[in-house]
Amino acid sequence: MAIGIGVLGSGIVGGALLRRLIEDRQALGARTGLDLEVRKVAIRSPKKVRSFPIPGHLVTTDATEVVSDPGVQLVVEVMGGLEPAGELVRTALRSGKAVVTANKELMAARGSELLDEAAKAGVSLLFEASVGGGIPIIRPLTETLAGEPLTRVMGIVNGTTNYLLTRMEDGAAFDEALAEAQARGYAEADPTADVSGADAVAKAAILASLAFGTVVDPAHVYREGIEHIQSVDVGYASNLGYVLKLLAIADKAPEGITVRVHPTLVPSAHPLAAVRGVANAVFVQGPEVGELLFSGPGAGGGPTATAVLGDVIDAARELLAGPRVTPRVRFGPGRVRPFEESTTKWYIRLRVIDAPGVLAAIAGAFGEAGVSIKSVWQEGRQDEATLLMITHDAVEANLRAAVSSMSDLDVVSEVAATIRVQSDEP
Amino acid sequence: MAIGIGVLGSGIVGGALLRRLIEDRQALGARTGLDLEVRKVAIRSPKKVRSFPIPGHLVTTDATEVVSDPGVQLVVEVMGGLEPAGELVRTALRSGKAVVTANKELMAARGSELLDEAAKAGVSLLFEASVGGGIPIIRPLTETLAGEPLTRVMGIVNGTTNYLLTRMEDGAAFDEALAEAQARGYAEADPTADVSGADAVAKAAILASLAFGTVVDPAHVYREGIEHIQSVDVGYASNLGYVLKLLAIADKAPEGITVRVHPTLVPSAHPLAAVRGVANAVFVQGPEVGELLFSGPGAGGGPTATAVLGDVIDAARELLAGPRVTPRVRFGPGRVRPFEESTTKWYIRLRVIDAPGVLAAIAGAFGEAGVSIKSVWQEGRQDEATLLMITHDAVEANLRAAVSSMSDLDVVSEVAATIRVQSDEP
Repeated sequence: MAIGIGVLGSGIVGGALLRRLIEDRQALGARTGLDLEVRKVAIRSPKKVRSFPIPGHLVTTDATEVVSDPGVQLVVEVMGGLEPAGELVRTALRSGKAVVTANKELMAARGSELLDEAAKAGVSLLFEASVGGGIPIIRPLTETLAGEPLTRVMGIVNGTTNYLLTRMEDGAAFDEALAEAQARGYAEADPTADVSGADAVAKAAILASLAFGTVVDPAHVYREGIEHIQSVDVGYASNLGYVLKLLAIADKAPEGITVRVHPTLVPSAHPLAAVRGVANAVFVQGPEVGELLFSGPGAGGGPTATAVLGDVIDAARELLAGPRVTPRVRFGPGRVRPFEESTTKWYIRLRVIDAPGVLAAIAGAFGEAGVSIKSVWQEGRQDEATLLMITHDAVEANLRAAVSSMSDLDVVSEVAATIRVQSDEP
Repeated sequence: MAIGIGVLGSGIVGGALLRRLIEDRQALGARTGLDLEVRKVAIRSPKKVRSFPIPGHLVTTDATEVVSDPGVQLVVEVMGGLEPAGELVRTALRSGKAVVTANKELMAARGSELLDEAAKAGVSLLFEASVGGGIPIIRPLTETLAGEPLTRVMGIVNGTTNYLLTRMEDGAAFDEALAEAQARGYAEADPTADVSGADAVAKAAILASLAFGTVVDPAHVYREGIEHIQSVDVGYASNLGYVLKLLAIADKAPEGITVRVHPTLVPSAHPLAAVRGVANAVFVQGPEVGELLFSGPGAGGGPTATAVLGDVIDAARELLAGPRVTPRVRFGPGRVRPFEESTTKWYIRLRVIDAPGVLAAIAGAFGEAGVSIKSVWQEGRQDEATLLMITHDAVEANLRAAVSSMSDLDVVSEVAATIRVQSDEP
């Protein structure tokens, strides 16, 4: 018996998925025992030239036709954005259709509500492709690690920014790296969602929610992008044995959950330091399982379509098995801590007057704020010197206070850069 | 409604699992919505002192009591070995009980038959912990990547041998490294199953079967252990830019599937080269998804129990949802090629007489066998020299012929080592 599939959206991921569902239908059937038949595809622009031409009789420009088609039992949402995607997914679930989505923004903002709808209807809502592209991470977190009280999930979840930072590590300036990424199709014409960290925030919220079993609102995720990163700091960091990465970090401590996205200096021996270019990687930690690393292609039509297709196969099996009573994902209460309460280390670059007593004045300001300095390097140049410092672990709020009082010192011309540092110890 | 759990075996993994099932019952219930109740535990030696003392009323020394107990709906098999484990698992499945096993030997030898039994009974047979300890790999292969026509799975799947090779890389001799591993509990008193590659063969057979959807008999997996590896070759390899690893490699080409376990020189920039000590890692490749890497703790009570517990939660959810009709794993036909047909590269160390014309004679013997040499290094010492060679890709049978004819040359005192080399290109 064929399972009728409806697809919402036919961009890069949708196109790659349709090609495989249609061209490989026989081979997929032989491998999985399932006959997956595409019955309707909603597209925005019928005249757009596509890498995979969709058979005309499947096409509609009215997305509601897909979710209301009685021949469609499984809806794949690869259009992206909050609306109309959210309403379409909800309608599909309420009509008893299984849904597979690659939509990080939707799952971060409304995942819990939509999973409830799916549970009520007894159908699957799967979203492996919403984080990490082709890397299996959602299923390991929700199934294999379902019995582990995880304490940390930390990863490189945005390929665009990782490409930019890798090029800057190799010596390029930010603007140069960005132009290159745009030319290669790794960055959008408007790169804001990537470089500002907004894309990573949605993924961080999803990972944290699943890992800790508590809904984390993306609005409660601390966000800092890489727009202000200067090549000079990437170079200094490299000399000090660090690599700069934009990390999504979710921690769980007895005091609560902290979720944040910010540029982070990672020790060069850390496995995440070796993840270069558009690749993604996610680190997972728990008291029993220790450390796990998942890495691979975090975006792109082929890899993302593989993750979507895996979900489609899974959801189709579930449909054939009949309605489920126990959802795989459950959320309970939990406190999300303000980022200011959490403990970090900072790399600080100051431009200072090269005179006796400068270091003492600066060290004094740090001491007053309760921050102790781990190491200091000074590089002189005529009357002015550059001072690089790495602090010990300190409370984020205290670090901010220390840096703020630093700006008021006469001997400090400029606080030129502050970047958080990942501890060697987890 | 509580799900009754029976456990077969209470060694390191069983003990870690029982501790969590019993001590964390409330917390697990809150996180998963499932009430998992241990109702019977089969142990071999009632008097053995255990890290987690099992409540007396649960214990039996008769394993058949566990699989026939009507209060047990889910059986966890962590006793290991082919029998009686196989018969007990079959009995449990035939009585409609779900089964979770960590038994690589059993799943490699009889997995297909037991999965059929499970499908007939409409219950789950899950085995995430059979390969890679705490690393989620079975579920990604069978679910997330179900739609990907994978071409290669390659990994470090035995922590004991990886520890030994890491220590040898650091300069230790084989016997020294082994004694150290035994003292630390990383190697058994009789380390044969690990160092001979037999443990890795079972895991390679499971990974290949799942990745390619064809049952691979462990008897058809080429096996070579690390017993004969000498520290001197680990050192030479390091100078040439390679790290020695015991790899399980499964390839799929149009001509068929090749599965093998042997010591392998890996370029030092390859991600597997960085996997040190008892850690495991699995590389997965496909035309659409590209390259994925999964790494983490490949053994140990805590990590392995986490994988078992994830399966227990999954199987319990399935039990509550009622009997399934579509199994997640399906096998079809496929040809397993003899290893001799496959293409590899070799590192060869020869002891030769240091005289003019030696290299010409050796190069001639290689040429006749259809093997071309990529690079040669010579290290002289009085009348005798050491010759290190790395070949280009060649058919395994031809390489063997070349090396065999080499031994007959007067100028060659000894073929001192032959080790396969992983290509830089996948």
